[in-house]
Amino acid sequence: MKIIPGPASKQLGEKIAELIGVEAVPLVFKTYPDGESYVRLDATIENDDVAIIQTTSPPQDTRLMQLALIADAAKRHGAAKVTAIVPYLAYARQDKVFLKGEAVSIETIARMLKAAGVDSLITVNVHEAKVLKKFPFPSKTVSAIPLLAEYLKKKGFEKAFALAPDDGALWLAEEAKTILGGECGYLEKRRDYYTGKLTMEKKELDVYGKTVIIFDDLISTGGTIASAAKIMKTAGAHSVYAACVHPLFIGDAEKRILDAGVEEIVGTDSVSSSVSKVSVAPLISNALKELKSG
Amino acid sequence: MKIIPGPASKQLGEKIAELIGVEAVPLVFKTYPDGESYVRLDATIENDDVAIIQTTSPPQDTRLMQLALIADAAKRHGAAKVTAIVPYLAYARQDKVFLKGEAVSIETIARMLKAAGVDSLITVNVHEAKVLKKFPFPSKTVSAIPLLAEYLKKKGFEKAFALAPDDGALWLAEEAKTILGGECGYLEKRRDYYTGKLTMEKKELDVYGKTVIIFDDLISTGGTIASAAKIMKTAGAHSVYAACVHPLFIGDAEKRILDAGVEEIVGTDSVSSSVSKVSVAPLISNALKELKSG
Repeated sequence: MKIIPGPASKQLGEKIAELIGVEAVPLVFKTYPDGESYVRLDATIENDDVAIIQTTSPPQDTRLMQLALIADAAKRHGAAKVTAIVPYLAYARQDKVFLKGEAVSIETIARMLKAAGVDSLITVNVHEAKVLKKFPFPSKTVSAIPLLAEYLKKKGFEKAFALAPDDGALWLAEEAKTILGGECGYLEKRRDYYTGKLTMEKKELDVYGKTVIIFDDLISTGGTIASAAKIMKTAGAHSVYAACVHPLFIGDAEKRILDAGVEEIVGTDSVSSSVSKVSVAPLISNALKELKSG
Repeated sequence: MKIIPGPASKQLGEKIAELIGVEAVPLVFKTYPDGESYVRLDATIENDDVAIIQTTSPPQDTRLMQLALIADAAKRHGAAKVTAIVPYLAYARQDKVFLKGEAVSIETIARMLKAAGVDSLITVNVHEAKVLKKFPFPSKTVSAIPLLAEYLKKKGFEKAFALAPDDGALWLAEEAKTILGGECGYLEKRRDYYTGKLTMEKKELDVYGKTVIIFDDLISTGGTIASAAKIMKTAGAHSVYAACVHPLFIGDAEKRILDAGVEEIVGTDSVSSSVSKVSVAPLISNALKELKSG
């Protein structure tokens, strides 16, 4: 197996290649003045299984296109099997028809990646794991929550209350709880599909005087975490922290969350950011080793 | 047949629907704060043949993704046949392996569009028509050069010298010549594939004292047209004009061309720009009528 670090995950890709002890294929990459991406594999990959590491945080369309072009280049020049490692998988929230007439974006993208040359896919904490069942190739999602919880445990957060901002994320809080050893719970969140308006409330959660860590798969504009944090503060939480796998941090998300009373944010390097304190490299390396031997 | 004007070609799409006298399907379109596109067809298209009008000038990756999502929405909600009308088709210049290890981007994109739901494609002056033969669905390219030449003829440019900046574009100049009734010719252009450096020269062309119109399929940064214009001025051309199908105008392209001595630039609305003086709507309408009856 050879690793191809894509332009969006160059550092992470090189780290993974080093961890599993395989060659990182050098990629010549440029962007033309008009914005088109150009890719060229600068080593032979004939008859090799290759894994392309490319996250698809914003600019997601461009990064998806780069991933597709690398997959095409790999297949065209003789790769036996192409695995796409997409630490953050864009468009995963449009995973069904909410209103008549909509696309199911994530399924469209999976079909497109297959057409480009992708044979299997590994991602980290996809928004809903069940969406992968509709993908036209073997796919799996691995969870970085244990890595985040271990990191927090070492930092002295044992027994902290693990909070999910909605019931969809409850399993993340439960996963964290098995490591932190405290309690867990979730808030009620409802979104109006026409207006996009969000309402959240707390039901039967006792967080008074406790240290609360909000766990979520991603932070986009930070609205969800900020609302959750305010509810926790109002409920008398002693202090509030936030942990997420994918720190997208759109606009002033970080400031917004800190302004809401969150003491610290911890994220992974699935998306490079100021809070990427935990690396998903070991997680992905293990998944790739299983793939190699399996 | 119904027309779906995509977000990148809303006006052009509505014009085409009006010209052929069919319904323009309203599209609910938005961009999420993180940059993901959302599409929803706001009318039923069950069992209808639909044509999506969406140009893919910069931001090309985002516009390609929007096209793919609309195709998915159309197919998912019952469209019988989906034709993609892509006035400017991005990535068409990466149409073969120039250096070992490269992707063939335009073929990757065609396969991806098919996977998204596209059944056939119509474009305007694709860079090299032969690339369409590799597409996994019926495709055709129509030429807007006659429309540009007619426009220029009416403006008093009969008998002008039609110049192609390279031999690949010679057929464009020849097409214009049949309408303008003057001479035509081309410059020698060579590109170094490693450095991207361009060299151009004039061989056996007599343009002394003549009005020259440079014809090309697209203007990106304007470098090619500016170089050609300077060569024409040095060779004693009386005046120099530029006509192109796709005015991408990257950066200060327009200024660069005018600074090189070009009196005026004429382009089409395949890409909305300050020089989109000629509409490709009648051209596309005719191609669609043929498709309907054929």
